[in-house]
Amino acid sequence: MPTNRQWKLTNRPTGLITPDVLQLCESPVPTVADGQALAKIKYLSIDPTMRVWMADIPQYMPPVQIGEVMRCVGLAEVIESRHPNFKKGDKLSGLVGMQDYLLLSASDKYSPQKLPSIPFLSDVNFLNLLGGAGLTAYFGLLDVGKPQSGETLVVSAAAGAVGSIVGQLGKIHGCRVVGIAGSDEKCKWIKDDLGFDAAINYKHPDWKEQLTAATPKGVDINFENVGGAVMQAVLDRMNLHGRVVLCGLISGYTKQDPGLASFGQVLIKRLRVEGFIILDYASRFMEAGQKLGMWKMTGKLKSRETIVKGLEKAPEAINMLFRGDNIGKLIVEL
Amino acid sequence: MPTNRQWKLTNRPTGLITPDVLQLCESPVPTVADGQALAKIKYLSIDPTMRVWMADIPQYMPPVQIGEVMRCVGLAEVIESRHPNFKKGDKLSGLVGMQDYLLLSASDKYSPQKLPSIPFLSDVNFLNLLGGAGLTAYFGLLDVGKPQSGETLVVSAAAGAVGSIVGQLGKIHGCRVVGIAGSDEKCKWIKDDLGFDAAINYKHPDWKEQLTAATPKGVDINFENVGGAVMQAVLDRMNLHGRVVLCGLISGYTKQDPGLASFGQVLIKRLRVEGFIILDYASRFMEAGQKLGMWKMTGKLKSRETIVKGLEKAPEAINMLFRGDNIGKLIVEL
Repeated sequence: MPTNRQWKLTNRPTGLITPDVLQLCESPVPTVADGQALAKIKYLSIDPTMRVWMADIPQYMPPVQIGEVMRCVGLAEVIESRHPNFKKGDKLSGLVGMQDYLLLSASDKYSPQKLPSIPFLSDVNFLNLLGGAGLTAYFGLLDVGKPQSGETLVVSAAAGAVGSIVGQLGKIHGCRVVGIAGSDEKCKWIKDDLGFDAAINYKHPDWKEQLTAATPKGVDINFENVGGAVMQAVLDRMNLHGRVVLCGLISGYTKQDPGLASFGQVLIKRLRVEGFIILDYASRFMEAGQKLGMWKMTGKLKSRETIVKGLEKAPEAINMLFRGDNIGKLIVEL
Repeated sequence: MPTNRQWKLTNRPTGLITPDVLQLCESPVPTVADGQALAKIKYLSIDPTMRVWMADIPQYMPPVQIGEVMRCVGLAEVIESRHPNFKKGDKLSGLVGMQDYLLLSASDKYSPQKLPSIPFLSDVNFLNLLGGAGLTAYFGLLDVGKPQSGETLVVSAAAGAVGSIVGQLGKIHGCRVVGIAGSDEKCKWIKDDLGFDAAINYKHPDWKEQLTAATPKGVDINFENVGGAVMQAVLDRMNLHGRVVLCGLISGYTKQDPGLASFGQVLIKRLRVEGFIILDYASRFMEAGQKLGMWKMTGKLKSRETIVKGLEKAPEAINMLFRGDNIGKLIVEL
């Protein structure tokens, strides 16, 4: 009898994910009743926001409750269906959970969506360039940041899934693009392969001087994924009336007080800082998907994945994000 | 021979203004050459930004240099003129400096502006409701905050010059207005005399619970003058897509690291935080002055001043701001 392995939240983390936080439970694969479908999960998207979902703090979705299957975006394929909207072989993307199998019911609040079949786009593309990372980069930079040709854009966590796309979108829109990342290998990738104008490794002792040298005309747009000291250094370089797209504060997610930085520069330089989450743009996902797909097809957007194999490694994969062990999109393949 | 007393910056302050920071120097009243005018200063406007001007940090105007007369907004009357733009008896408002007399030359970079003579508006009105405080409240709330009828507005330093006008403008525009101030007397004034819907003394131990109770529908606009813990408490009450007008961070001006607060709520609630300084609205001061004057005439805007007599008391008056010793606009009368 096949079993469904599920990672359930057993304790809330205080820092990184320790072995007591998630427990791998086994249960029989659910049987499919009328109106339901069963999908096998193929890939999990490992995202910084998962660490936020584990914490019992006010946030943009309810925190995952103790005993629940850990929330996770992923890609699944329908293997059996008595559901009106899905047939066998359909591929789905959305909140699938950290598990092997997903039972779909008509009453699901956050049902995954059926993916179109486009020959030149792989499954993994739908979790990266055309998934949450691509959509976040698209709406965050273009709608909130509003880049103008000739402006200077600085993006942090620049070799991550979102940051690497933001920088390329900035180049498409005529910006000078400077990326901040955490290793020389990451910096080499975003500069040599993705075409960033400059890349700065914040682990080098003179990285702030490098940032100053790389932004001779100051900074017009900061696409912020990190917070804390990295954000502060970029704020110090901002031009009058600059814009900060506040997309993430990953440096603080494993600490008690996330995203602490000074508002002094925001005042003195009359900056506009806007928090941003793609849920607010759901009605325009199709528009973004078409544009991102076109840029991908025409070679203007490149993507890269770090793949971890095996559901059993998913909790450690989350920690990889906070240690900066991934380049590009971090995915668990089941 | 009459003398001109001038407060000159001798040392940069580290906290409040200590006796070694400013020195009262005497020199002969300047003689008026061709193209110049001499004005006697009648009132000084004591503003939190003066403490920022004293610090050698990047800011929106050059810091005052050691040995220079301390920069200060005020109202002066021309007593002798060989200047093409001014005649004896003209009243001027602008950067007059902390001194008894001001010599005006055609080449002045920041020349004070001639005030119109309007019978029902006092000199002091031109430094308060129709001066920097009124203009800051007007553009900050109406242009940056964009209040809608029925929204909840929270203003900090609510019994100060700017905050007291912001709250009244919020009422004129149909908002529920909650003020945060530092004494029961201040709270009584803004609630009973100015018509705020609620007033909270942040020195009471249960003030955060009071803030929650006073904002049953959350907070749509935060007009922020204070920063730090007060700002953090209001951010925690903000609604999704709320707006923060960042006008001042007075709690941090006498500390090394101004305005520290968490950006976490900005991200999670997708807030828009905008730094704001009225210099950017100079071309529209006339528009604001007319509207503010009309509201004053029709009794919709009230104002109050705390008057300190004597130029010699000006440095201590600056400290009064940071101790919260003033209600309404703080002015030194010469």
